[in-house]
Amino acid sequence: MHPRMTTRPSPQDESEDEPRSTRKRRAILDASTSVFLSNGYVGTSMDEIAALARVSKQTVYKHFADKERLFSEIVTATVDEIADPNYDEVLNLMDTGDAERDLCAFARRQLRAVMEPRLLQLRRLVIGEAGRFPQLGRLFYERGPGRTIDALATMFERLASRGALELDDPRLAAAHFNWLVMSIPLNQAMLLGEDEPATQAELDRYADAGVRAFLAAYRSR
Amino acid sequence: MHPRMTTRPSPQDESEDEPRSTRKRRAILDASTSVFLSNGYVGTSMDEIAALARVSKQTVYKHFADKERLFSEIVTATVDEIADPNYDEVLNLMDTGDAERDLCAFARRQLRAVMEPRLLQLRRLVIGEAGRFPQLGRLFYERGPGRTIDALATMFERLASRGALELDDPRLAAAHFNWLVMSIPLNQAMLLGEDEPATQAELDRYADAGVRAFLAAYRSR
Repeated sequence: MHPRMTTRPSPQDESEDEPRSTRKRRAILDASTSVFLSNGYVGTSMDEIAALARVSKQTVYKHFADKERLFSEIVTATVDEIADPNYDEVLNLMDTGDAERDLCAFARRQLRAVMEPRLLQLRRLVIGEAGRFPQLGRLFYERGPGRTIDALATMFERLASRGALELDDPRLAAAHFNWLVMSIPLNQAMLLGEDEPATQAELDRYADAGVRAFLAAYRSR
Repeated sequence: MHPRMTTRPSPQDESEDEPRSTRKRRAILDASTSVFLSNGYVGTSMDEIAALARVSKQTVYKHFADKERLFSEIVTATVDEIADPNYDEVLNLMDTGDAERDLCAFARRQLRAVMEPRLLQLRRLVIGEAGRFPQLGRLFYERGPGRTIDALATMFERLASRGALELDDPRLAAAHFNWLVMSIPLNQAMLLGEDEPATQAELDRYADAGVRAFLAAYRSR
């Protein structure tokens, strides 16, 4: 589930017990994800995480200095898992010949990824705590929507320089694209507390409709 | 702050102590809004609300059967205070002659209202609790964005029937309008935990840009 949570040992760290340490680290991350998502940030204790991961509290602290650090790791790992493929895909879209087809394919994958239940739960948790712990939300924003919008802006700027799009402000256009695709099902999921508020077919329709509205607004005439 | 929280006594309720009862009710609502927004839903106790409102716990329960009922009243009052004028304004927009000017004026007012700090705080709280208490989020959704989008759909359908807009699905177009105007600053506010993430001038620019993108996509050609 969390490929990026496993840090590869650097050569000087290699030792007999390295795999065991890595295993414990992953157990702590998996346990803490469950506990955070069930109990919220304030309601989570390092004791409970240690118990669920079947390690000592000292081991938890050896790997993660404090609760905030641990939560930051989870946000980073979960958001990167979604955002990294999106980011790569956006950059590969730059040489497209058929903007509508390619943007629809991208938007469908992006929307499905963003609507993944675990990410929806984490997003609700981060928003709920953002007033008290803005650094957690900032991390989520910068590694998630912020980064995707940056990549889209780069791509749209190139499409505009080739005459495929007509825009003054690539970052604004990128944000409009992003939210045209995601806002309807994402806001419903956030407020209604549903982890699967729409079927895959419905998500595809929202993605396609968002792309069509975007192109109707920004395509060169 | 909360004009709708004050219930007008009906004739048969009129008695010597009615104003005192109304005053207490408002004190409870004001106190509980503060306590909920500071401590979250789970972290709030009826004891603390009673202490802050300077009434007995029995008085709190006399007015509000339980914590959920009390929280629902706050959501309803706060969201209605924002959504009611929006709703009325949307319906009055129907006879516009200059769609761009009128939609920009509406969008600017709508965005300023939605970005009111107290409403942002409540939205974060509702989202944070939506997984555990979906009925609270549903109330927020239905009385807030859901209702505004319904009104916009009615208005856009009439604009389309007069040939000003070109659309197949008025509710989809209404949702696109709503989120084109609000998503950029609202998502930043939600995730970054900032209650005033943008100046009024910046909000106006987001509103205008959202309307322009909407009209570029949906205006008849």
